[in-house]
Amino acid sequence: MKTIKIGLLGLGNIGTGVYKALNMNDALIESATGAKVVIHKILESDLKKERDIPVDPKEFIQNPDDILSDPEIDIVVELLGGIQPATSFMLDAMRNKKHVVTANKAAVAANFDLLKKCAEANGVMFRYEASVAGGIPILNVLSSALRGNKFEEVMGIVNGTTNYILTKMTDEGLEYGDVLKDAQAKGFAEADPTADVEGIDAANKLTILIALMFDKYVKPEDIPTIGISKITKAEIEEAKAKGCKIKLIAHAKDTGGKLEYSVKPTILDNSHPLAGVSNEFNAVFVKGNAVDELMFYGRGAGPLPTASAVIGDIIEIAKSIR
Amino acid sequence: MKTIKIGLLGLGNIGTGVYKALNMNDALIESATGAKVVIHKILESDLKKERDIPVDPKEFIQNPDDILSDPEIDIVVELLGGIQPATSFMLDAMRNKKHVVTANKAAVAANFDLLKKCAEANGVMFRYEASVAGGIPILNVLSSALRGNKFEEVMGIVNGTTNYILTKMTDEGLEYGDVLKDAQAKGFAEADPTADVEGIDAANKLTILIALMFDKYVKPEDIPTIGISKITKAEIEEAKAKGCKIKLIAHAKDTGGKLEYSVKPTILDNSHPLAGVSNEFNAVFVKGNAVDELMFYGRGAGPLPTASAVIGDIIEIAKSIR
Repeated sequence: MKTIKIGLLGLGNIGTGVYKALNMNDALIESATGAKVVIHKILESDLKKERDIPVDPKEFIQNPDDILSDPEIDIVVELLGGIQPATSFMLDAMRNKKHVVTANKAAVAANFDLLKKCAEANGVMFRYEASVAGGIPILNVLSSALRGNKFEEVMGIVNGTTNYILTKMTDEGLEYGDVLKDAQAKGFAEADPTADVEGIDAANKLTILIALMFDKYVKPEDIPTIGISKITKAEIEEAKAKGCKIKLIAHAKDTGGKLEYSVKPTILDNSHPLAGVSNEFNAVFVKGNAVDELMFYGRGAGPLPTASAVIGDIIEIAKSIR
Repeated sequence: MKTIKIGLLGLGNIGTGVYKALNMNDALIESATGAKVVIHKILESDLKKERDIPVDPKEFIQNPDDILSDPEIDIVVELLGGIQPATSFMLDAMRNKKHVVTANKAAVAANFDLLKKCAEANGVMFRYEASVAGGIPILNVLSSALRGNKFEEVMGIVNGTTNYILTKMTDEGLEYGDVLKDAQAKGFAEADPTADVEGIDAANKLTILIALMFDKYVKPEDIPTIGISKITKAEIEEAKAKGCKIKLIAHAKDTGGKLEYSVKPTILDNSHPLAGVSNEFNAVFVKGNAVDELMFYGRGAGPLPTASAVIGDIIEIAKSIR
């Protein structure tokens, strides 16, 4: 049986989740791919962190080239986050004929065409399911099972932090600042929450959705974006009184040839499928000209749900190179 | 550019939907597959029906062998419904090295292993996305993007007729018999509604979900099945008073090695993601050991949503044989 070797860039929360899930489900993955999928080397500088996984210290390397140019490595899994050096590492891996899987929305959104073209030029696969809506396999279905549709619209709750904050404000009648502090204490919001609460993270994900659905690249910074930091308890109460909820929606719509897009707080009637998506959950609502309305709901973050998406991509690549 | 030729078995509602969607989205399908996908012959006896599509009468044939043994045909799309002769036609097509796509849950559920093994033995693809939950690409994600998970549970609202009836009973406080008559008048329920209202259709779909998720074949008739025909207005009001809804749920759960399964009316708290699925919509809720909870929501029936699933399967086959 063939062994497929992975070079892992980064062993933070998501990397640890991928490591765990590969171990936990190894028999299943072997049967799905017909190959043994193993982590061969890990780029990680923090060797002392408690990780609760049986990682062999010999797997750690400090020089990225030890992975990027190792001829034994088939797939590079990039989980560093941030645009650079992640993008350069992915491009180098592709030029060295390695397939690439990433969960990095910032890098994919910033360099979508560059990464895609580099993968094509080098005859390798480039997959990034985990970059939008974590464990929800939305990019897979948009690129395969739903390809018989002309897409008309997408509305996504694609940031768990802001959905958690808005849910608490709605359910418990609290002000934004108080909920943010609570979310930070619980680890649902980062110390610097700007990228989440100002909609920047959602705009990155919308760039990727637009590229797949409408075959058009719109830079994240060109998407009109309003976050949730100015939303008041009073606005939420007003929406509630009308049978509505306020959600941060990443939206794109084809209006007869012209594509409109935005990320902004949006009032949804309680009967809308997205209105019931609470707490840190994500959901993506799409409309196609054959299938009509669809919605995909699940965990948009977290080590194991994100690992599910990363491993789904690894399995597809492993099946095709075995 | 290669032309991929389809032999269509049946030009009823779904067949007409497939015909329309293939025409409507032909440029997209050509770009997704790198091939021209055309309907070459159609097995259909009713030549006089008004169909609102520009079908050439020369495409109609009356003898199934004209499709099943035509060396020019690459893919046989079976949309006849019913276990036989559909199953025999699919097996014959596979033996003649044709790939097969079907929307036929009764045939797939009754003969799952037979059809799968015949496809493997003949080196052809067998796809049946449209057989469960219409346009929702649930079978695709279970077989690919989510393969890195051990599945723990599935709960599906997989029959639109019964969900429509239960929704009307709940929202309008009506009795079962009155809503059924109304649903029949509107075309949402058949003249003989037994297969839908007694849960038989849902059991067929659960057989297919169990086969894909738990790698186990359970005959539809071995699934304990209770339909909705005995549900009273009083039971629905009682659930409503407790903040709950009654839904017909196709359920399977791995309880530590033992698989439990049933189709039955189930009381769901309004906070459950499936409780908000109304009218003729379908939804499938799954739990995996990495991804945790996911839900997929959309139209479970109708010519164009079903066509979306059929064409998704055709595209996957066309991509791989091009």
